[in-house]
Amino acid sequence: MNYSSKLLELAVEEFSKLPGIGKKTALRLVLDLLKREKDEVNRFASAMKSLREGIRYCKKCHNISDVEICQLCSNPRRDAFTLCIVEDIRDVMAVENTQQYKGLYHVLGGVISPMEGIGPQHLNIESLIQKVKSGEVKEIIFALSTTMEGDTTNFYIYKKLKEYSIKVSTIARGIAFGDELEYADEITLGRSIANRLPYESSINS
Amino acid sequence: MNYSSKLLELAVEEFSKLPGIGKKTALRLVLDLLKREKDEVNRFASAMKSLREGIRYCKKCHNISDVEICQLCSNPRRDAFTLCIVEDIRDVMAVENTQQYKGLYHVLGGVISPMEGIGPQHLNIESLIQKVKSGEVKEIIFALSTTMEGDTTNFYIYKKLKEYSIKVSTIARGIAFGDELEYADEITLGRSIANRLPYESSINS
Repeated sequence: MNYSSKLLELAVEEFSKLPGIGKKTALRLVLDLLKREKDEVNRFASAMKSLREGIRYCKKCHNISDVEICQLCSNPRRDAFTLCIVEDIRDVMAVENTQQYKGLYHVLGGVISPMEGIGPQHLNIESLIQKVKSGEVKEIIFALSTTMEGDTTNFYIYKKLKEYSIKVSTIARGIAFGDELEYADEITLGRSIANRLPYESSINS
Repeated sequence: MNYSSKLLELAVEEFSKLPGIGKKTALRLVLDLLKREKDEVNRFASAMKSLREGIRYCKKCHNISDVEICQLCSNPRRDAFTLCIVEDIRDVMAVENTQQYKGLYHVLGGVISPMEGIGPQHLNIESLIQKVKSGEVKEIIFALSTTMEGDTTNFYIYKKLKEYSIKVSTIARGIAFGDELEYADEITLGRSIANRLPYESSINS
């Protein structure tokens, strides 16, 4: 494409490096920025810079946090014996939104993905094992995506923790609330039959 | 939403001001930036800043350009008597990609939209009238979107230029190449029947 301006081309290129943003969308976004006041664009640019430079992670759960120990980890009313293993802050927010979970989190920062060159050493797995080793954890709950990478990560951690006597569970997979059976994929439906629950437990929850 | 970090919240807010970017997408994009090297994020931020600060527009056609008179306007092989009226650089690029147009452009910078508070005075209309007045233009071709705003803008300019003896045309509307008739909307199909062309012209083009 001929952008007729180097500055424009550069901005479009930078934007289209973001996931899910193609050249056309990038151009649309950049042209929107161009219509704004200089101050506004500077605010946009410096928000990104100061985020990347000033970002900190909770020393306990590795979630993004402005303080050393995040609000969740420092809350004495949360159950510190249960850890929910998630990929990133989005999953913490999703579980928190349910208001059903009262334990703490452990944010891995990704999942094992040989395709993208992400191995266990790139994730916060070692600190999880240390936590379990020190005896401060009684149960961990896997809440990673049901992808090949998520399953691999679950299995890797599971094997690492097998020697310690803690409960390891995974969030229930099944037919989503409001879903129609005929549109469910076979694997989900098959598993939800295999892992069927006593009817009483479903009416009590 | 509880982002557990002010810096993160600010970055997400800035991103979600962009058109078509909601809070969830913004968070996804911001987390992607966070995973990158500091240098890369700085490059992203400064590309936006220097674009907004250094951007220039062609003095003749008002398209984005790094030089005073853009490549198109300064090309002696283009037909300077014909002007294609477009909204922004994206439309210039779209028409240029067809390789069917050899005239010049006039970029309005938007369309008249009372809903968004954009009146004729915010667009490059006055300079268009001056060009026509000076006698350097023989034909103008409207190539704005077929929306209410685009039509209003066409009509506004048409009325302003009525007193000058120039040809005013609009790009053909009709059934797109490869489209099936049964899926065409009534207005498009109706107009394409009303504006039917001699068969000879369709086989020659």
